[in-house]
Amino acid sequence: MPDDASFVPTARSKARRLADRAAYDEAAVYAILDCALLAHVAYVIDGQPFVTPTAFWREGRTLYWHGSAASRAIRSVHGARVCVTVSHLDGLVLDRSGFHHSVNYRSVMAFGVARVIRDRAELQTVLDRFVDRLYPGRAAEVRPGTVAELKQTMVVAMEIEEASAKTRAKGPAEPMDIDEGWNAWRGVLPVETRLRAPEPDPINGDHATVTPDLALYAEGERLDDVLKRALKG
Amino acid sequence: MPDDASFVPTARSKARRLADRAAYDEAAVYAILDCALLAHVAYVIDGQPFVTPTAFWREGRTLYWHGSAASRAIRSVHGARVCVTVSHLDGLVLDRSGFHHSVNYRSVMAFGVARVIRDRAELQTVLDRFVDRLYPGRAAEVRPGTVAELKQTMVVAMEIEEASAKTRAKGPAEPMDIDEGWNAWRGVLPVETRLRAPEPDPINGDHATVTPDLALYAEGERLDDVLKRALKG
Repeated sequence: MPDDASFVPTARSKARRLADRAAYDEAAVYAILDCALLAHVAYVIDGQPFVTPTAFWREGRTLYWHGSAASRAIRSVHGARVCVTVSHLDGLVLDRSGFHHSVNYRSVMAFGVARVIRDRAELQTVLDRFVDRLYPGRAAEVRPGTVAELKQTMVVAMEIEEASAKTRAKGPAEPMDIDEGWNAWRGVLPVETRLRAPEPDPINGDHATVTPDLALYAEGERLDDVLKRALKG
Repeated sequence: MPDDASFVPTARSKARRLADRAAYDEAAVYAILDCALLAHVAYVIDGQPFVTPTAFWREGRTLYWHGSAASRAIRSVHGARVCVTVSHLDGLVLDRSGFHHSVNYRSVMAFGVARVIRDRAELQTVLDRFVDRLYPGRAAEVRPGTVAELKQTMVVAMEIEEASAKTRAKGPAEPMDIDEGWNAWRGVLPVETRLRAPEPDPINGDHATVTPDLALYAEGERLDDVLKRALKG
């Protein structure tokens, strides 16, 4: 697929406002999805909206997430329309008027129809790919699922029908004449999510230090950077 | 309200599984809400679920968020059922089987009916309270909204009808006999979100360093800690 492939926005995903913050091309959408671990999945049961946070990953135009076979968020979405939103908070933006306070962020809303994967062989394959997506090479190092474990697990796949990316990554807006005389601090308070030192389980014995599949996840690294690099690993 | 006040879970919010991770008391729910800036709000338009990330805050049993008067996420929710989910990712949990990989997290799902605040006086009041909730004392330092600005802004209020908190905050599960012989690293890779150094706008002049209302937001502080302390400030 060419690099400039785009999702075609309909009324569902087209930005109503601040169009300069929006993008629909795969590169922009994937760049935000691929450095996140958590997505928020929205679904509807009897007219009531629900939104559940979940670990997820992407392969091509398909998003995957998994959960317990007993989970409402999993059981109820097969064949249903869902919305998957991923967001990164990058900073607090302060201005001289309350109105112009804002946040810096990167977010994606993706729409599609959920399909629950129950087939045991397919399940094992996609779960292995999830482990390797996060920790390159690790799927070969971990014990495969038992029949009982795979019965307790489901994976949901959603092909992205349309998606939009929104980003704000700058300082406060242009100063306004009417702000003169107000001296509240203007600027950005950036935030970032980083890894702390690994906490090994005592059972590791000789493996108290992390194994090569986890090398990317070193203390002090930015989580978004690591997740992006792991995908290419 | 007594400290042990609880939300009463119905089928909508009652945890289906891993009940040991769930709580319905106000203290547990508020502790998770009050150290977050971003919420994910789910709503339904013509059967299609949407989930939008937004800055939010809590006062008593009411959640507030705001947005442009032109925003679909704001305009379409008045009188509608919504679900507001807040989540913190605290770590990646690794085990010797792919099946037992997990994440440490704190999350809240809250349910209620949205009410859009359009009255200009009420709007100015709640927006001032939002500024002060984040940056104690700042509302008095910033220029009040103009009539035009307030026309462009809406705030949504949602009284929490029911809510559930879910938390996982521990190492990998008990080791299993069938894991013997598999030596993949077991443990937790903790993550946390912290403030970086403030980035002042050049226009500040003498105010290049942050003003006292922002003192909590010092470089290196954890964002969740700061948000909690700001609320008490």
